[in-house]
Amino acid sequence: MSKPSIPQGTRDFSPAEVRKRQYIFNTLRTIFELYGFQPLETPAMENLTTLTGKYGEEGDRLIFKILNNGLHEKKEADKEKLNSEWSKMLEKPFSSPIVTERALRYDLTIPFARYVVMHQNELAFPFRRYQMQPVWRADRPQKGRYREFWQCDADVVGSTSLINEAELLCIYQSAFHNLGLTQVTVKINSRKLLAGIAELCGTPELMMDITIALDKLDKIAWEGVTKELQERGISEAGISHVEKVINVKGNNEEKLYALQEIMKDSVTGMQGINELKQALAYHKELADAAWDSRLEVDVSLARGLNYYTGVIVEVACKAVQMGSIGGGGRYDDLTGLFGLKGLSGVGVSFGIDRIYDVMEELKLFPEQLASGADVLLINFGGENELYALGVLKQLRSAGVSAELYPDVVKFDKQMKYANKRGLQYVILPGDEERQKGMLSLKNFNSGEQKMLSVDECIEIIKKN
Amino acid sequence: MSKPSIPQGTRDFSPAEVRKRQYIFNTLRTIFELYGFQPLETPAMENLTTLTGKYGEEGDRLIFKILNNGLHEKKEADKEKLNSEWSKMLEKPFSSPIVTERALRYDLTIPFARYVVMHQNELAFPFRRYQMQPVWRADRPQKGRYREFWQCDADVVGSTSLINEAELLCIYQSAFHNLGLTQVTVKINSRKLLAGIAELCGTPELMMDITIALDKLDKIAWEGVTKELQERGISEAGISHVEKVINVKGNNEEKLYALQEIMKDSVTGMQGINELKQALAYHKELADAAWDSRLEVDVSLARGLNYYTGVIVEVACKAVQMGSIGGGGRYDDLTGLFGLKGLSGVGVSFGIDRIYDVMEELKLFPEQLASGADVLLINFGGENELYALGVLKQLRSAGVSAELYPDVVKFDKQMKYANKRGLQYVILPGDEERQKGMLSLKNFNSGEQKMLSVDECIEIIKKN
Repeated sequence: MSKPSIPQGTRDFSPAEVRKRQYIFNTLRTIFELYGFQPLETPAMENLTTLTGKYGEEGDRLIFKILNNGLHEKKEADKEKLNSEWSKMLEKPFSSPIVTERALRYDLTIPFARYVVMHQNELAFPFRRYQMQPVWRADRPQKGRYREFWQCDADVVGSTSLINEAELLCIYQSAFHNLGLTQVTVKINSRKLLAGIAELCGTPELMMDITIALDKLDKIAWEGVTKELQERGISEAGISHVEKVINVKGNNEEKLYALQEIMKDSVTGMQGINELKQALAYHKELADAAWDSRLEVDVSLARGLNYYTGVIVEVACKAVQMGSIGGGGRYDDLTGLFGLKGLSGVGVSFGIDRIYDVMEELKLFPEQLASGADVLLINFGGENELYALGVLKQLRSAGVSAELYPDVVKFDKQMKYANKRGLQYVILPGDEERQKGMLSLKNFNSGEQKMLSVDECIEIIKKN
Repeated sequence: MSKPSIPQGTRDFSPAEVRKRQYIFNTLRTIFELYGFQPLETPAMENLTTLTGKYGEEGDRLIFKILNNGLHEKKEADKEKLNSEWSKMLEKPFSSPIVTERALRYDLTIPFARYVVMHQNELAFPFRRYQMQPVWRADRPQKGRYREFWQCDADVVGSTSLINEAELLCIYQSAFHNLGLTQVTVKINSRKLLAGIAELCGTPELMMDITIALDKLDKIAWEGVTKELQERGISEAGISHVEKVINVKGNNEEKLYALQEIMKDSVTGMQGINELKQALAYHKELADAAWDSRLEVDVSLARGLNYYTGVIVEVACKAVQMGSIGGGGRYDDLTGLFGLKGLSGVGVSFGIDRIYDVMEELKLFPEQLASGADVLLINFGGENELYALGVLKQLRSAGVSAELYPDVVKFDKQMKYANKRGLQYVILPGDEERQKGMLSLKNFNSGEQKMLSVDECIEIIKKN
């Protein structure tokens, strides 16, 4: 028998990990619900036709396809047909309806769009939904990149109001505040501003080229970006326009004021600036002074995905060396892919795995998540065992998470278990305790031990 | 463009459905944690070798296999090899390591056993874990049977104490109590008692045959069972023994007392009876008088799965026409499949989908789960919009789940939205309200409308 293992790029989550992940999920869920967002869950499997062609050529290649079942049942009847399908599949990979018709969810956006189109008549628009589910990608596994990972998205479709952008900014800030994550910056920009730059350069058709070059500013500095812009066919005059834009300094109001001057000849650019101003004005009314994350207009922010058309957002945490922990923006016509035109949407995404890693590194998880239970009752057997069961019942009725060691084994072995479990308290219900109707409560950390009533035990354990 | 759809046997869960399902999951999670059980999550994908051969021939056939990616990358180099693998796959289905090496989780038990073996040195035994995740089976979809469905298991491995059985019985009763499910019967029996019957019949090797026949008592009555027992080679004397056993009547104590008489010549049978007595004795100490479900010794209870070896359990809800809503039992040596011998386990499973259906039919879900949010603020635009945003902030700070309609559209359209969303309250922040610093709160159900302060609104909404 070979040693069991799990597929590359997948993970088991231990009890402590599940509790910490639940803590993140619950914190986000509470905020989403407070903001009137509604939960949605879609199946792990989608029809292959729903997914293909939506994520680019590279994306299509990374979709996990599910082998049709019943292949072997068909083999007598359809061997020839199957073989011809197989040859076709070898030529044009994964397109065979006999071999594979289903695939694993690749992101939460396409299933959401598919859901909205299928249920357009039942839904109340604008539809605000959140979704927290795993997705699967056949990427090469590496540190921090998994083949099964969780996405957490909040989107509004069916409204063009910039109040939505403001609300999503608040959701970000409120979430990071409640999770205890400090040194967070929420960067905001507009695709229209980027389009405006391309207009000023005299090459509106090169907007994506400029975007891609600007996106690298962090990594290759202005010198590198200049070189890339030249290679991508931007004129010297154009490059100096870009330079002026990214050199805009000051607080958000000052930046937007300066941009208005630079952009005054670009209709699209001015539209982008006005949208940012409006979104920030709404945000000001909604934001809580307690939130300590920064909200910063960053004109070099580009976001890779093609489908964004308006305001875009990205979240960075400076406390650790880590890529962005969230991002999003406005997109027009996402549901158009499935035949429902003209529905504008805006959404943000939380990078759950990275947020987990940051919180772990900064030790932000509440301590009690590590062990779960509060106390172990030592099993001394016989009448003491029955006495312990009665105590166990009382503890649980009072909301104390408690276990009785189920087997009558040596004291040391039971204590070792409590230690390995990470429990803070042990209760010793022995002969003396039973006869007195009391309990000995031992604090596992301090070593202190006291004879107490059940109620006193409950009080002490609950206080911790 | 074809109309989008989802694969047969899978489901989208609407906001109201997600909330209700979360309600079940959270209720169970709270109880598991109270009993010191620890959460575990395993990946959706397992190595195919982990799963095959564990669920019988029929089970193997129903496992969803994942097509290896990178097939098309290999096609130039390995076309011949791929073709030969393909031919092999057509002969011996799904065994090809080039075509498929991964498969979707088929249940939670095998991944749990695999996890325990992989992490045996880190775990504190006895290990009490719960797990609530979807599983996938390529079964023919039909009413109440899905290809993606949720399992919820709680197991203890590494302890032979019958306290574990008693605890699991309490978890069942406590869960159904907290969910508000009445008319629930938890049936309990022992595989050893069934083995004892086979011994009494003089055919211990036919224990499974007797079990299978007895399992149908509900459906085909004693007459049908007799016929089936005859066909399966049980002697007339044997059949009369079986009849005596299943005719045992009375409360649990009376039944066990009568069984002791009948079984006195079977060592295994007596062991089964003693185990049931001990488990019930432990249960008595732990059980809460408030739980209204019945706990009933049922000697005709068989449970289909081969691997049970001790006490077995099944849960029925008489309030609706429905199969069992839970089941479980003790199994020896589950982890032996993966090379870790001699670890006894006992577990129970909750049928989440059926429990959901029963609760829906009996209207047991709290009403507020349907809509989520509490109140909609009507958007009158301009200054009123900014005023509304400030109110929105105050409502949320007070924990009231609230939305502002993001677009300035006709009053009727906004009211229609609130209605479709199922919201109970609407707030109208118009000119008069803004000038007075007040709000008009409208109860959507009663139609009643009142001018109030923000604090008064919060108080009324929270009271509901």
